[in-house]
Amino acid sequence: MGETFVIVGGDAAGMSAASKAKRDDPDLDVIVFEKGEWVSYAACGMPYYVKGAVDDLDDLVAVTPEEFREERDVDLRTGHEVVSIDPEAKVVTVEADGERFEQPYDHLLIGTGAHAIEPPFDGIDLDGVFTIHDMDEADAIDDYVDAHDPETAAIVGGGYVGIEMAEALDERGLSVSLYEMLPHVLQPFGDPVAGVVEDHLREQGVDLRLDTPVEGFSGDGRVERVELEDGTVPADLVIVGVGVAPNTDLAEEAGIELGPTGAIATDEYGRTNAPDVYAAGDCAEATNVVTGDPDHVPLALTANRAGRAIGQTVAGEPTRVGGTAGTAIVKAFDLGAARTGIVDEDEAREAGFDPASVTITAPTRPHYYPGAEDLRVTLVADRESGRLLGGSVVGRDGAKRIDTVATALSAGMTVDEVESLDLAYAPPFSPVWDPILTAAKVLSGNLD
Amino acid sequence: MGETFVIVGGDAAGMSAASKAKRDDPDLDVIVFEKGEWVSYAACGMPYYVKGAVDDLDDLVAVTPEEFREERDVDLRTGHEVVSIDPEAKVVTVEADGERFEQPYDHLLIGTGAHAIEPPFDGIDLDGVFTIHDMDEADAIDDYVDAHDPETAAIVGGGYVGIEMAEALDERGLSVSLYEMLPHVLQPFGDPVAGVVEDHLREQGVDLRLDTPVEGFSGDGRVERVELEDGTVPADLVIVGVGVAPNTDLAEEAGIELGPTGAIATDEYGRTNAPDVYAAGDCAEATNVVTGDPDHVPLALTANRAGRAIGQTVAGEPTRVGGTAGTAIVKAFDLGAARTGIVDEDEAREAGFDPASVTITAPTRPHYYPGAEDLRVTLVADRESGRLLGGSVVGRDGAKRIDTVATALSAGMTVDEVESLDLAYAPPFSPVWDPILTAAKVLSGNLD
Repeated sequence: MGETFVIVGGDAAGMSAASKAKRDDPDLDVIVFEKGEWVSYAACGMPYYVKGAVDDLDDLVAVTPEEFREERDVDLRTGHEVVSIDPEAKVVTVEADGERFEQPYDHLLIGTGAHAIEPPFDGIDLDGVFTIHDMDEADAIDDYVDAHDPETAAIVGGGYVGIEMAEALDERGLSVSLYEMLPHVLQPFGDPVAGVVEDHLREQGVDLRLDTPVEGFSGDGRVERVELEDGTVPADLVIVGVGVAPNTDLAEEAGIELGPTGAIATDEYGRTNAPDVYAAGDCAEATNVVTGDPDHVPLALTANRAGRAIGQTVAGEPTRVGGTAGTAIVKAFDLGAARTGIVDEDEAREAGFDPASVTITAPTRPHYYPGAEDLRVTLVADRESGRLLGGSVVGRDGAKRIDTVATALSAGMTVDEVESLDLAYAPPFSPVWDPILTAAKVLSGNLD
Repeated sequence: MGETFVIVGGDAAGMSAASKAKRDDPDLDVIVFEKGEWVSYAACGMPYYVKGAVDDLDDLVAVTPEEFREERDVDLRTGHEVVSIDPEAKVVTVEADGERFEQPYDHLLIGTGAHAIEPPFDGIDLDGVFTIHDMDEADAIDDYVDAHDPETAAIVGGGYVGIEMAEALDERGLSVSLYEMLPHVLQPFGDPVAGVVEDHLREQGVDLRLDTPVEGFSGDGRVERVELEDGTVPADLVIVGVGVAPNTDLAEEAGIELGPTGAIATDEYGRTNAPDVYAAGDCAEATNVVTGDPDHVPLALTANRAGRAIGQTVAGEPTRVGGTAGTAIVKAFDLGAARTGIVDEDEAREAGFDPASVTITAPTRPHYYPGAEDLRVTLVADRESGRLLGGSVVGRDGAKRIDTVATALSAGMTVDEVESLDLAYAPPFSPVWDPILTAAKVLSGNLD
């Protein structure tokens, strides 16, 4: 008789852990409690379903519940909500179909995810006002567009969800306005990226309003208007995308410690302060590879990787969950924008560094080769050590070049070492000096 | 009165050194002797000129002779051939317009480049048989196609020049055959890349003949046929692209040491064994970052970087030239293929490692996102240390992902460290697990 590994939440972290643990130790009883019906789905693909680039919502499901149950031998129970954890007794209480029962565990993983923040806007409960954080919401937005043929959409929040939804709804034929209370969109990407993205959004016909807090929404049952400080704007559909917050209630009530970011504190193996209780994914902290501090980066790769590592640990091979560089990439109409590590000098100073930075614009191919596009690259470094701290890129082509920066960050490289990298060159792919190398070359000069 | 920096050869290494030295130390007299008329040109762009993707040969010139002379204050003398070096007297002998003169130097850079190897094929001097290593040759091929309207082209050699020229001449409407004496094309890229490229070349209509040595060419003044061991094949145009060899005669005659690869031996600052004599670019060795051994990688970035570093050193700030990972990328019709470091187990064993390797095929985007393409990734590692030694990629999209591998190599990362990299994910750009991460994950499992 094997041990029992109980997992709370059936998305990226939970299902990665379940699959890996069961594969590595088939004697383990692996039970996943998921309160909803969807498991293991690509939340990042939802805007592209609304856009119409993905035909079927089911296409976003990586592995179906049946496959988990039958092929991977995971005891997956959808419609089951874990309502409390008793870390002393090593038991969880589960509610399903109005009944409660207790389930003992030897190992527990909390993978409860995050939820979309809903500010206390007037009229947030009107029909036609949506957040987009789960599959049912994506489906509901799609249905609403089909059913009511809205002409105008208002998007509240200029983060990546807001920008992806602007593109999606523009593609669906709506006239889109976007409201950001801060001076710039994509705040975690830094100003040099924001400037390029903002110009592009306007070129694409988005009515972009920066420094513009929204007060609420109004309409007769169904949303008709966005209320601003100084007036109202028509909106037949509203998407609220102002960020996410970790789902920590269950952990907190069980006495499990949260970290400085407000997410569940974990060590390098994903362990919480309670014995044999792990946490991973959007509800948990990860260690930032640049600062060494706890960070909350609710992104898919971090969740998948940590879940998989914890599954391996539970199956008997202790495995570190790995750090995060906060690497992110977003498509904004025809642009790609990406960031990793620390993207500006203010952020670097807050983290205790003495920063220098540079922003350059360089082509992604030689000037003579067809299809060369400008890429704007920002790199940030520490003056004293010469160490690279992070950077950003934005352009119509080549945003995945951020991976070179992310790799250099994990290795703790100096700017001089980055300048010396032997990156790939041929005219169809890059100029002799890749834009990342050019930026490092200029920054290196500034550090002397 | 400043010191005199004499440079032999006006291409990537030489002109990078000249520009950097003069900018950093304007008192320096910088004299460049170039025996031809073209300087600072993108040799890698020549196939795209023949293809018709680049309109004008002059577009491939990065900086014109006039700009070097007038804006950068470099004493550039084209049509000037350095015929000997006397390292004891610190003087070079120069020939121009049939006259000889001596030019003393304080610092000397040998940037004589490489030349296309011309095997002793019968009929290699026939009209219509070309190598493609300099701008005049590119121009001559283009003129020949215009003037003679050839229907068939034979390419001898399946390296990157041969493959780029196959694409170029196919685009010009010729029926192309390609002869490779080895069992596979693109030998330095390894068999997993070669297999994919060979299938693609055949799909594109190239008559690909592997294991097929060419004996010579025949025709009446102008080439008409390729002669093989077992017959002849019609060819109205022939490109011989069987590799390059470093131009070392000048250095050897001056008593300057060559290294094990046959190119000029240099130290980490690009210095030869003669005092104040440097060498850089296609004529010189560089240090391989994986093996630590001298290597000969006649590619543009290595030349540009070493030239620039030597210019900086001569101007008073000693600067290392940097190593090479042997990173290379090539377009083969609709494919991109790239390599870095050590690409297969045989090569790893020869370098003294105990290798493990893996080849996987993974999509460059999630399955549900439009435009996902397969990328084949090979990674090679050392079993004992777990260190990544190199790899290759090939596919219709994403070949620049080799830069992640090249960066990891320079950092000396283990496969586990590569598996932990926080690379960028969003559906338009990558699956959650980038193909490089997937390959590292599988290889890591094999190393256990």
